[in-house]
Amino acid sequence: MRMRKKKHRDERLEACSDLLIYDIEPFKKDITSVFGNGRPLHIELGCGKGKFISETALKNPGIDFLACEKNKDVLVLAVEKVKELGLKNVKFFCGDIITFKDIESKKGCDRIYINFCDPLPKMGKRKQRLTHERFLSIYSKFIRPGGEIFFKTDDPGLFEFSLNSFSDFGLRLRNITFDLLNSGFEGNIMTEYETKFSEMGMPIFRCEAIYENVPVVPKN
Amino acid sequence: MRMRKKKHRDERLEACSDLLIYDIEPFKKDITSVFGNGRPLHIELGCGKGKFISETALKNPGIDFLACEKNKDVLVLAVEKVKELGLKNVKFFCGDIITFKDIESKKGCDRIYINFCDPLPKMGKRKQRLTHERFLSIYSKFIRPGGEIFFKTDDPGLFEFSLNSFSDFGLRLRNITFDLLNSGFEGNIMTEYETKFSEMGMPIFRCEAIYENVPVVPKN
Repeated sequence: MRMRKKKHRDERLEACSDLLIYDIEPFKKDITSVFGNGRPLHIELGCGKGKFISETALKNPGIDFLACEKNKDVLVLAVEKVKELGLKNVKFFCGDIITFKDIESKKGCDRIYINFCDPLPKMGKRKQRLTHERFLSIYSKFIRPGGEIFFKTDDPGLFEFSLNSFSDFGLRLRNITFDLLNSGFEGNIMTEYETKFSEMGMPIFRCEAIYENVPVVPKN
Repeated sequence: MRMRKKKHRDERLEACSDLLIYDIEPFKKDITSVFGNGRPLHIELGCGKGKFISETALKNPGIDFLACEKNKDVLVLAVEKVKELGLKNVKFFCGDIITFKDIESKKGCDRIYINFCDPLPKMGKRKQRLTHERFLSIYSKFIRPGGEIFFKTDDPGLFEFSLNSFSDFGLRLRNITFDLLNSGFEGNIMTEYETKFSEMGMPIFRCEAIYENVPVVPKN
């Protein structure tokens, strides 16, 4: 998403620095040490303005959430939202997911949310899609065995690509739907995009992909 | 498909009786004994008027094909087509697939084709869909480990249902496409229905489902 630079953005982020991580390095041996309290950890990749993560965290006080977003102009809105709600179970990573490639975490995250990521339709950009095997391999470094990806998109091409990518990587697919709102799925929390798309009558695609038989954490 | 009863149908079927099986019982210990020559066996469930099976068999002389169809009024056209082409690698089973439930075959079939089966959209009819777990379980009695289902449909609801059904049953999904004709898939052989649907501009959904880690043939 392209946005005009937010006024006083950096000062505003600075005011929320207790919620922010700019470097994943200190947590690469144990990703759950971002919170360090032994509770389940869910990660959202690309949290945008934070509607999804703040509502999800509010409804699930027993779970910790790490929301990732590299665009500071939207991130600032997400962080302020969480700060205002006084949520203690959300932290933010400001940076590129690709830096997670160095993680080799003994304790894993339980769930990854990928909501309406950039579909990057051009073939030459496919390696940058967050559901490409290159990323699935990175996630396998910090997701626990049995951990799951919850994936939503409005883009049929990206959905088709992702189903194949998940399956080819050895993940087990579950709860595939081509029309989330009419699927009977309960408890759906919408992102900003999703609200807009749904109002336009566009179907939302969703599935879950489970890291079941994939070697997920290096033994040591 | 409902069709008017074909004229002299039973006499015409009788004239092709060398290609026809009405009872699967004699083959239930070894499904490949329908041909009994040790070559790979592919089965089509619901062959309709036989365009797909005759063209596929013609292109693959090293493989044996068992085409199943319970509607005698379309079956007669399929059988006559194969007879006229002089194909020696196709036989027909005239009856309900459900009778395959008694098969416990030591040697398995390599591939099952399910092309444009009845989508049976009503919830109460879902157990009769050919991709329902009830049928996937029956197929597991005569498909070899690593054997595959090649599935095509024009019905998005049935496709969604089938992806979940395959995955929940433990089959591995592969080559999922939401638009077969524009997917780059080579060597597609169209059924009668498919030709019609494609000309109307309707997308064709396709996937492959592999019996990989499923216990497929009882040990004895």
